[in-house]
Amino acid sequence: MRSLIPFAAVDPKTRLDSVLTADERAAFARVMLRSVCATLHETGYEPTVLSTASLDDTALPASTAVVVDDQPLTAAVNDQLAATEPPTLIVMADLPLATPDAIRRFIAASDDAGNDADIAIAPGLGGGTNALVVREPAFRVDYHGASYLDHHEIAADLGATVETVDSRQLATDIDEPSDLAEVLIHGDGPAREWLVEAGVELDTGDGRVGVRRS
Amino acid sequence: MRSLIPFAAVDPKTRLDSVLTADERAAFARVMLRSVCATLHETGYEPTVLSTASLDDTALPASTAVVVDDQPLTAAVNDQLAATEPPTLIVMADLPLATPDAIRRFIAASDDAGNDADIAIAPGLGGGTNALVVREPAFRVDYHGASYLDHHEIAADLGATVETVDSRQLATDIDEPSDLAEVLIHGDGPAREWLVEAGVELDTGDGRVGVRRS
Repeated sequence: MRSLIPFAAVDPKTRLDSVLTADERAAFARVMLRSVCATLHETGYEPTVLSTASLDDTALPASTAVVVDDQPLTAAVNDQLAATEPPTLIVMADLPLATPDAIRRFIAASDDAGNDADIAIAPGLGGGTNALVVREPAFRVDYHGASYLDHHEIAADLGATVETVDSRQLATDIDEPSDLAEVLIHGDGPAREWLVEAGVELDTGDGRVGVRRS
Repeated sequence: MRSLIPFAAVDPKTRLDSVLTADERAAFARVMLRSVCATLHETGYEPTVLSTASLDDTALPASTAVVVDDQPLTAAVNDQLAATEPPTLIVMADLPLATPDAIRRFIAASDDAGNDADIAIAPGLGGGTNALVVREPAFRVDYHGASYLDHHEIAADLGATVETVDSRQLATDIDEPSDLAEVLIHGDGPAREWLVEAGVELDTGDGRVGVRRS
C-alpha cells in the first residue's frame, strides 16, 4: 500500500510556543517526522513525505521519498490521491506514539474479515483525522476543522463505508503543551529523548499531568 | 470476573464548572455512570458501583450492586482488592465512550495468547489509569497523580507483568471542557444526548474542536 506522511515544514507546531522556541519547534517537528517514517518502515511501508518545503536539511531514514508541494495540506494530499491508484495510507507526521503494532492493528481493523472498509480513520483528539486508509478512488480529504466528521460526510456522499479505529497511540497528535506529557509518559523513542534533553519534564499536579521546563 | 466502578458522588467533575452548574455536573456524572454500568452489563459483567455516598437518588441498571465507602478513591478500591480474590476489573465512571467492543478488546489484550498479564492498564489522558485488570493478589492501586507510571512501579516492585492497552475510547475520561467535544464527536449514547439537550455544542475553530453553550 502506498503511504504518505504530510509535513508542514515552515514554522511548525505554533501551539507549542509557550514551551519551545521557533528553532526548537522546527527541530522537534523533524524528530517526530523521522519517528513516524521509521515506524512505517518497520511496519513494512516505504513512505513518501509530502512536505511544504525542501527537507534537504533533514536526515530521514534511507529510502524515504520526499515530494515538495507548497499548497495547503488538503490540496496537496488530494492531488496525490488523484494522481495514484488506491489504496493509500496517510499518516500525520506528529504521532510519535505510533508504533508498528498500532499501525498494523489500524490496517487490520480496516479490513474486517476480508470486507475492506472503503475508508478507515484513526481519529485525533479534538475531531482530527490522524491516520486514514483510502480505498475509494473518488474520496478526497478535508483536513480543516472537525475533519473526522467531515470525512464521514464525504464518505457518506460517495456511499463509501467507514471504519473508525480505536487507538490512543494514533489519537495522540502532538499540538499542545499537554500533549508533550503524553510523549514523556508513553513514548520510548527519539521524540521522548529530545524532550528530555531539552529539559521538558512532567509536572504532576492535582488533575492531568502537564509539563514544565527545568 | 468481578468488576468495580468507583464513583465520586459528591460535587463531581469540578473542572467542568466553566460549562456546567453544580447540579448539572452531578446529573451528568450520573448519566456517565449509568452509561458505564450499561456497557459492562452488555459486555457480560455484573458491576459493583463503589460510591462515596448513597446513590438512592440515581436510577442504575437492574442488578447493579452499590457499595458506599466514603474513603478517598485509592483506599476504597484497595479495601475491595484486599477483600476479594482476583481477578478484578476496575473501570472509571467517566468513560462514556467505552463500548462493549473496547472493553472486550481490553480484556482480550490483557490475556495475550493465554499468558495473562498480572496487571492490564488502559491509560487515561494525562497519565491516569482508566481501566485496570488486577490478577496479582498483592497489587494495590494509587490513583493520585500520574497513576499510570505509579502502577507500573508498584507492579515492578511485585515482579508483576503489565500490559498497556491502546484504546482512545478508554483513554477519554471526561474531566475538562475539551473532553465534552469528544463525547459530542464520538459518543452515541445517553451522555451525548444529555449534552445536546443541555445546549452544549461543538465550537470549531482553527485547532482542536472545543465546546460552547447555546
